[in-house]
Amino acid sequence: MDYKKILINRRSVRNYLEKQVPIETILEIIHESTYAPSSGNEQPWKFIIINDRIAMKNISEEAKSNILNWIESNPNDNVKKYETLLKNKEYNIFYNASTVVLIIGDTNLKNTKVNCALAGSYFMMSATSRNLGTCWINFATHIKSKDMIKQLGIPENHEIVAPIIIGYPAEVPTIPLRKEPEIIRII
Amino acid sequence: MDYKKILINRRSVRNYLEKQVPIETILEIIHESTYAPSSGNEQPWKFIIINDRIAMKNISEEAKSNILNWIESNPNDNVKKYETLLKNKEYNIFYNASTVVLIIGDTNLKNTKVNCALAGSYFMMSATSRNLGTCWINFATHIKSKDMIKQLGIPENHEIVAPIIIGYPAEVPTIPLRKEPEIIRII
Repeated sequence: MDYKKILINRRSVRNYLEKQVPIETILEIIHESTYAPSSGNEQPWKFIIINDRIAMKNISEEAKSNILNWIESNPNDNVKKYETLLKNKEYNIFYNASTVVLIIGDTNLKNTKVNCALAGSYFMMSATSRNLGTCWINFATHIKSKDMIKQLGIPENHEIVAPIIIGYPAEVPTIPLRKEPEIIRII
Repeated sequence: MDYKKILINRRSVRNYLEKQVPIETILEIIHESTYAPSSGNEQPWKFIIINDRIAMKNISEEAKSNILNWIESNPNDNVKKYETLLKNKEYNIFYNASTVVLIIGDTNLKNTKVNCALAGSYFMMSATSRNLGTCWINFATHIKSKDMIKQLGIPENHEIVAPIIIGYPAEVPTIPLRKEPEIIRII
């Protein structure tokens, strides 16, 4: 797919068809994600693929509960605007996607967030090039339960940086308005 | 340009032709960078364009000196492997590029690093789609001099996340070996 088309088609998709993305396709997209650059070519990203809707629902509940607790202790935090949504029992942070991929990295490395975000960006574009939809679900970084962390296989000293749902889009939203880029200075 | 071609052509380019990239092209690439997704569609990125080789050399000297000081106090840090390079007076962290773009973000926002890294990823791909070369120069995040920060116009509470050089490649290196992606678990 032409890059211009990817630029326009890569949207945050929140409504998917039932059809499951084949694991081979997910693995191809993960492979292409590792073409991202990383500090000192460290390639510090690791991947967890979750296709199980019950596991996804459990993660959603854990994240919602942790964020709601956070809002209770930090009522001035910006995230408070999501309180009503998070209290809605019907709301699943992964919407109706059938797969979420977690890109995780070692917190002892200096640039884990940046490096894993780059892999995440590549992941979303590679998916778009296959006419698949994605959405970065930042809420899913809020997992605290030790049991859940163990179930997911997240090693010690690792953090979830890029939780990305993927699937066949039921609809692709139009591009939301972008602000004019703020160019602070040209020297 | 086809996405598969971008995947292969987006390399860290460290050798450029003298020819300056027109400012209109840089602005187009910056515009396309803002197509990146961001938390809550905040679009928190801001841009500084530096075409002046003396200004670039000064930033290089400032960064080298700060990193060398860091190594002196933290001799076990991984960055020590760059000590000889950093002590080389000929070494410019921006190589012979004629332009560097700094993508900066507000440190008070929660996901600045991730959001600006996504814009950085888009920046590198948009440049590649125009047959331009780029390289993310992480050393350039190490600017401390208050005078320099003022000269660059970096507002208070902002950090440099993505310093990216851009130019016409003198040569495009081949793709460095990628490790097989580590898939921790498929659930």
